[in-house]
Amino acid sequence: MIPMAGKALWSGRFKDGMDDSTLEFTSSLDVDSKMAFYDIMGSLAHVRMLKACKIIPAEDADSIVGGLKKLAHQLEEGGLDMDYSLEDVHTNMEVKLTEMIGPAGGKLHTGRSRNDQVATDFKMYLRDAVLNAVEAVNGLIRSLQDVANGNRDVILPGYTHMQHAQPVTLAHHMMAHAFRFGRDADRFLDAFERMNKCPLGSAALAGTTYPIDRKMTSDLLGFRDPTENSMDSVGSRDFVTEIAFDASMVAISLSSLCEELILWNSQEFKYIEMDDRYSTGSSIMPQKKNPDIAELTRGKTGGVIGSLVAMLMTTKGLPLSYNRDLQEDKKPVMDSLKTVTDCARMMAKVVSTIKINESRMLEATNSGFINATDLADYLVTKGVPFREAHGIVGETVRYCIENKISLDNLTLDQFRKFSPLVDSDVFSAIAVKNCVERRDSYGGTSPASTDVEITLSMQDSMRREEDVRMKDQLIQSCWDKLLNE
Amino acid sequence: MIPMAGKALWSGRFKDGMDDSTLEFTSSLDVDSKMAFYDIMGSLAHVRMLKACKIIPAEDADSIVGGLKKLAHQLEEGGLDMDYSLEDVHTNMEVKLTEMIGPAGGKLHTGRSRNDQVATDFKMYLRDAVLNAVEAVNGLIRSLQDVANGNRDVILPGYTHMQHAQPVTLAHHMMAHAFRFGRDADRFLDAFERMNKCPLGSAALAGTTYPIDRKMTSDLLGFRDPTENSMDSVGSRDFVTEIAFDASMVAISLSSLCEELILWNSQEFKYIEMDDRYSTGSSIMPQKKNPDIAELTRGKTGGVIGSLVAMLMTTKGLPLSYNRDLQEDKKPVMDSLKTVTDCARMMAKVVSTIKINESRMLEATNSGFINATDLADYLVTKGVPFREAHGIVGETVRYCIENKISLDNLTLDQFRKFSPLVDSDVFSAIAVKNCVERRDSYGGTSPASTDVEITLSMQDSMRREEDVRMKDQLIQSCWDKLLNE
Amino acid sequence: MIPMAGKALWSGRFKDGMDDSTLEFTSSLDVDSKMAFYDIMGSLAHVRMLKACKIIPAEDADSIVGGLKKLAHQLEEGGLDMDYSLEDVHTNMEVKLTEMIGPAGGKLHTGRSRNDQVATDFKMYLRDAVLNAVEAVNGLIRSLQDVANGNRDVILPGYTHMQHAQPVTLAHHMMAHAFRFGRDADRFLDAFERMNKCPLGSAALAGTTYPIDRKMTSDLLGFRDPTENSMDSVGSRDFVTEIAFDASMVAISLSSLCEELILWNSQEFKYIEMDDRYSTGSSIMPQKKNPDIAELTRGKTGGVIGSLVAMLMTTKGLPLSYNRDLQEDKKPVMDSLKTVTDCARMMAKVVSTIKINESRMLEATNSGFINATDLADYLVTKGVPFREAHGIVGETVRYCIENKISLDNLTLDQFRKFSPLVDSDVFSAIAVKNCVERRDSYGGTSPASTDVEITLSMQDSMRREEDVRMKDQLIQSCWDKLLNE
Amino acid sequence: MIPMAGKALWSGRFKDGMDDSTLEFTSSLDVDSKMAFYDIMGSLAHVRMLKACKIIPAEDADSIVGGLKKLAHQLEEGGLDMDYSLEDVHTNMEVKLTEMIGPAGGKLHTGRSRNDQVATDFKMYLRDAVLNAVEAVNGLIRSLQDVANGNRDVILPGYTHMQHAQPVTLAHHMMAHAFRFGRDADRFLDAFERMNKCPLGSAALAGTTYPIDRKMTSDLLGFRDPTENSMDSVGSRDFVTEIAFDASMVAISLSSLCEELILWNSQEFKYIEMDDRYSTGSSIMPQKKNPDIAELTRGKTGGVIGSLVAMLMTTKGLPLSYNRDLQEDKKPVMDSLKTVTDCARMMAKVVSTIKINESRMLEATNSGFINATDLADYLVTKGVPFREAHGIVGETVRYCIENKISLDNLTLDQFRKFSPLVDSDVFSAIAVKNCVERRDSYGGTSPASTDVEITLSMQDSMRREEDVRMKDQLIQSCWDKLLNE
Repeated sequence: MIPMAGKALWSGRFKDGMDDSTLEFTSSLDVDSKMAFYDIMGSLAHVRMLKACKIIPAEDADSIVGGLKKLAHQLEEGGLDMDYSLEDVHTNMEVKLTEMIGPAGGKLHTGRSRNDQVATDFKMYLRDAVLNAVEAVNGLIRSLQDVANGNRDVILPGYTHMQHAQPVTLAHHMMAHAFRFGRDADRFLDAFERMNKCPLGSAALAGTTYPIDRKMTSDLLGFRDPTENSMDSVGSRDFVTEIAFDASMVAISLSSLCEELILWNSQEFKYIEMDDRYSTGSSIMPQKKNPDIAELTRGKTGGVIGSLVAMLMTTKGLPLSYNRDLQEDKKPVMDSLKTVTDCARMMAKVVSTIKINESRMLEATNSGFINATDLADYLVTKGVPFREAHGIVGETVRYCIENKISLDNLTLDQFRKFSPLVDSDVFSAIAVKNCVERRDSYGGTSPASTDVEITLSMQDSMRREEDVRMKDQLIQSCWDKLLNE
Repeated sequence: MIPMAGKALWSGRFKDGMDDSTLEFTSSLDVDSKMAFYDIMGSLAHVRMLKACKIIPAEDADSIVGGLKKLAHQLEEGGLDMDYSLEDVHTNMEVKLTEMIGPAGGKLHTGRSRNDQVATDFKMYLRDAVLNAVEAVNGLIRSLQDVANGNRDVILPGYTHMQHAQPVTLAHHMMAHAFRFGRDADRFLDAFERMNKCPLGSAALAGTTYPIDRKMTSDLLGFRDPTENSMDSVGSRDFVTEIAFDASMVAISLSSLCEELILWNSQEFKYIEMDDRYSTGSSIMPQKKNPDIAELTRGKTGGVIGSLVAMLMTTKGLPLSYNRDLQEDKKPVMDSLKTVTDCARMMAKVVSTIKINESRMLEATNSGFINATDLADYLVTKGVPFREAHGIVGETVRYCIENKISLDNLTLDQFRKFSPLVDSDVFSAIAVKNCVERRDSYGGTSPASTDVEITLSMQDSMRREEDVRMKDQLIQSCWDKLLNE
Repeated sequence: MIPMAGKALWSGRFKDGMDDSTLEFTSSLDVDSKMAFYDIMGSLAHVRMLKACKIIPAEDADSIVGGLKKLAHQLEEGGLDMDYSLEDVHTNMEVKLTEMIGPAGGKLHTGRSRNDQVATDFKMYLRDAVLNAVEAVNGLIRSLQDVANGNRDVILPGYTHMQHAQPVTLAHHMMAHAFRFGRDADRFLDAFERMNKCPLGSAALAGTTYPIDRKMTSDLLGFRDPTENSMDSVGSRDFVTEIAFDASMVAISLSSLCEELILWNSQEFKYIEMDDRYSTGSSIMPQKKNPDIAELTRGKTGGVIGSLVAMLMTTKGLPLSYNRDLQEDKKPVMDSLKTVTDCARMMAKVVSTIKINESRMLEATNSGFINATDLADYLVTKGVPFREAHGIVGETVRYCIENKISLDNLTLDQFRKFSPLVDSDVFSAIAVKNCVERRDSYGGTSPASTDVEITLSMQDSMRREEDVRMKDQLIQSCWDKLLNE
Repeated sequence: MIPMAGKALWSGRFKDGMDDSTLEFTSSLDVDSKMAFYDIMGSLAHVRMLKACKIIPAEDADSIVGGLKKLAHQLEEGGLDMDYSLEDVHTNMEVKLTEMIGPAGGKLHTGRSRNDQVATDFKMYLRDAVLNAVEAVNGLIRSLQDVANGNRDVILPGYTHMQHAQPVTLAHHMMAHAFRFGRDADRFLDAFERMNKCPLGSAALAGTTYPIDRKMTSDLLGFRDPTENSMDSVGSRDFVTEIAFDASMVAISLSSLCEELILWNSQEFKYIEMDDRYSTGSSIMPQKKNPDIAELTRGKTGGVIGSLVAMLMTTKGLPLSYNRDLQEDKKPVMDSLKTVTDCARMMAKVVSTIKINESRMLEATNSGFINATDLADYLVTKGVPFREAHGIVGETVRYCIENKISLDNLTLDQFRKFSPLVDSDVFSAIAVKNCVERRDSYGGTSPASTDVEITLSMQDSMRREEDVRMKDQLIQSCWDKLLNE
């Protein structure tokens, strides 16, 4: 009894066939066909193990290996059409194999089930997708480091509450984003480690009676170890949800960066101009040049967080072990990873090509009372307790507002109305450039401190690149072995 | 200057062309091509108005109308390929039109912008999708009514806390779901009314200087009225989020129904058996017959709620008016509506074809202490305050558990150990069938009460069907007029 | 057996008492004590019905009524302490009543259960909370109308993509928010209608055997009708989720308004200044004046949407009928309603007291190419097809940018380089004030159109106020009757 | 100018005082007063550093240290009332200190701001709360291990699709939950490491001009290192969102466990009975014994995931650096951690005290076709390809269903109708106990494999306990030093 196109793998027990609408409704092919390559790799590892453990005859195993390699080759050439009358990619692959090599193909499924197979395929898919995402986020971090490196002395207003607070350098500002994205990237790497255990051989839910060697398949597929419990292996999707969350954090960080770039690109801020290549216009307003990529990226936050919520909702309240609800696990996270990877790559280009309007940034910095804290600190150096100094400066600022004057333009006499301790060195103390340079505590905005930050961030980036490279290499060497040995 | 394939509608102001990756990243064609039909209808209404108001020459208008009708015809025939070098469906349509009728096509865009155009198209799309969803949910309600009608006297345990609580009829149980789905369907109809105002003519954001007649286009497209404020018209998407929420409520109600059917279909409950046509099997376990449709429907709750969260997240904190973030508004709600419509339709089939195991339901009802409340009520009729009666029955039940006996099998003497007021009429009082029939208060489980419920629910369904029919008729008559007059 | 403090209402069946940690974990008193008033009202209606239907003796009923009125009085005086050894507000009330009037108190629970009681109490609570929310949102709309009325001729840049798009009036801009909030308020009123059916008498889940009159209790409590199905009555919480969603939409609209006010209040925009009374400062930076209320309101969006997701998640996949999970239904929506009501009230104050910087708004409007669309429209009046005109203006704008000049300052000769059709009337055509006034289509930004909008919005507000007033009056008259007759 | 009760720390610049409603609306005291202890610790570390770096006079520093120690002592004694006219816990502490020791108290705030202070306090709070959560989850894992250890040979049906799939041991089933919870606990520990960097000294956003030693305060407070960038330090809350997510994963795992226990506790399953101490009853149905703790825990999933969504929503689209929106960061995660910690502790008790109904579990296992896979595997050992064997068994099962017979009860002749290869050894092959024992692959359900799992899980638990102990010890030793040296 060879499984045939148009017939489900499990029809023996059923009297009536499945309704066409049921097939259409339950098919996962649209989504899981993206895992075809991994399905073949998983099967190659499985059959090698079946052979090594003498569970199936060597000649059958060899014939299966041959067939699978051909399928892999056809897939690479773009020639693997899926049959939509078969419910999923696994059935498609098995049917193709059996059509190619005959009934021996049926022995491939010995000691495994679709439940462990799909969990294994999905983990392999996600490993690669996660590494891509890390690379993309790290690429964006590299762009931020470049902008930082090139703008160590460019001063702009630092904001709290969207109000000018204290002057900062553009380098320091860019590095704030870089460190946040760095943690986002690292979260992905943690998730990779946690999930990198192989479910294959867990079978339907209870393990198998065949004397399989799970360590062997785990090694062949580049996993750290086999999973410890077969029910957990087929029934848990926390690795998916964790990755969907990690993607959400990237999306949130991107939304923050984009919000700023959109504002900075506005006529009111004019801090930057986006490159023509990464902007669009309006069908009705000829003057428009819109920061669409940043807006779209910010907007896509919704879909990414939506995917996370989808996974949480889908897995809530499910008893062990595999339930068909879990079929809904793939699309959300696949979409999320693609979205944040694409967005990070686009934003790396956007960031790299912004034109920075230094003079406008400086003008904005000088236009308010952004050096008020420094005036207070100045008073402290003259012996005034900080809280008292704060009050004095607050009143000075109110006076300036009422008289439409900036702190820098007050005369010494005017200063002394508020505190007799002010002396002529006050002007140097509140010069914006000095304010920046004096903030040289660890992590502060002074060029010296920022240089340290950039160095640290670059070390982090290199560490991540090395980690991704090693992981990727290991995976590739597994594929090479499975396809060529 | 005719807009041409490969050239954006707004390129005049730009020095450098758009990067290819920008086009790919910002294109909405994959999603908005689903609105092609509505885009043509909107344009047909717009151009008729432009002609009537003498804003463009009659001959140009007629030529545009002719071209648009041809496009509509081609679309129906499946012959409208989209050009992916043009960023959206609106540009595609305009370019096709201009290629067909020449530069006069450029006049179609007078007095409107893509911003109002897309909002109008999307509302037209959603009106139809919402009516479909209402019809599907109502169809499921009809199936529940049918099961109720056919099972007025079938008794099963009513549950609270997943524990046997009081006996109910299957009809009553089904109607509980029916009324909940009824409110879900009505929520959609409220949303339809609220959004059914026409944004066309709001232009980019501020209205237009052309003497357009917005009431006319609104009428031609079957809207109730034009929208009141142009910035709100192009910048608000609350109608989308509301519909995404309404879909979420259907999904939640479905998840509840599915949870029950899955349990009832288990070996432990055995209350129902699902039809072979709507079940699937296992690739490894030959005995399996799985309630996949119910599981998948329950699982899809995640995606639907995820879409709602996506919309909320995307629209959070956006200033007026149109921001490109809003391009992300379509996919989530389109997917949601498709999902709940498909799920409701499949579940209607599942519900209609379940085989009900009456005897097993009755056996379960009789096996515990489900009539304990009736015993307490019996004591109340003998003059015992309810709270005291509750205590007496609690002790009686504990005695039964310890002695492995059911209430029905206690002797009169045993009953009297707990209360001397018990008499031989107790046996009739606690007979499960009587327990059900006596609960004849409004909304109670007695067959008489349930008949009232079914009648009410059927009236609701008819009201909804009539409402959908009228709305659909109005829309169709608009299309007929636009295409044929 | 009188229920006593420290003893659960249901202890008869149990051998071992409840662990203290169980009581603490399962107690809902912290939350449901907020419904004490409604619990008394529900009981007053129930006991009057029991008397009228002769289900309990008249003297017992009267004694219960007397006791309940005393409790209501004590509650109003602030003298109703809850006993935390009793698990919920319902038990507290019943124990207090029984302590006050003796065992007759035990008869109050005849023909009802905590399941229908809590559903009824909660609906009564929500009716009031929803009316409050509508009032608060409508109050904010009134503030927006006031600002609009006072600023019919104030011109500022209208934005799309956060870029200057076309000039609009401040009145028009404010009304865009007003109409969106109007739909938010109306959604609440729809929810009120949908949920305003009385569950009382549904009992535990199956109705009751007592000859109760549910229509009577429904009328006494101001509901439209009794609910139709007892299982649905105690097991559904879609009314809660719907209200949590309606609150979410208010939160989203608020987040949008706040985002704008925060930007407008920045040093870069300087369009407005917030009142000292509704701003705060910094502990370290003496010059800071922060728009905290708007920021907090925007931030609170998170909690409100979180509450919606909480309800969706909690109700996902629950079988019928009452499950203890549903105890988690109250806090999220109570918090949400309080949050959006408080935020709307605060923002009404903030909006009412902003100081508008007209000259800065006008300056911003004049500083770019915001009249580019009008230049294109001007060319159309000279016979140029719109698409071509758009291209011409795009090139003109590019020329201006490269030469750092604004459109208004081009000479006629310069204009004619791009199109020979330009004449001296172009200057009037692109004067910003004229641009605004010419957009007098329905819903456009011209003062004339905006006046129509304000009138419509004020009619909506009056309709809402009247609706809230009528609903509130009906509820109050019920309470008066129950407490005084 | 000493800060005084009733006066904000920043009032100098303001002309009009703050409205009372503004104070109430913006106050965070309700929530942040939970961080009072950590605020004092942070101040103690800060002032020691200020002294060591000679930024403030030694005598002032000593006086501040003395005052802070007194505050810590008063707090421990329960004697630190908060003044609600002061907006937050930080202001309260500083005012109390200054009232106690005079104006020198004002020097404590030198070189820091509330922005870095609150970030530091919050991280210290979360470190402890996270360790508590890990301990609680690990405690639940320990309970699961105990149940597993005691039930190595108890057999029950393993489920997929809520259908009997293959027999498993209760030990294996419990361990599936244990491993999932193990990953949940480990996720918390990852988050702890990632966030364990000290923001103190980042000041308002840009660092400080004082020659502070951030490494010293970081060490004194038990952090791994100071944070690298001051703007990131005060403006990022990804550590909060990550913890809220980690709590969500615990909630999801709990919801799964609870769902099962609720089902197992039902009359239909009867696999377990929950202990009276952890169950409740019904006010109307005397027979009820409800699994309330499991239901509530499952229901609370909603609130926990809601909190996660709240954080994501609140932080979406915020520009750098500190925005007041971030004040909304505390309540959601504090509630989440408390909820999952409490739930895990309660569920540990519930799990430890369930009464297991072995015979009912075995009966259920024997009642269906749960050994069908083993029959197929048996055929494979006779040389039938698996796919063919699957079909044969499917038909055998259909025959059994139609003839109401179980596989075990078929005669050899009946077996042979479907395959002539069946022999008398089939009966041993499909005996449920043998089915379990034969599944001895790594991670399989055989007692031998399960023993390995339990050992691995216990090692994991010990590793976690040791990690928590070490981390806690380090923190405690910091507090000891700060309070006693």
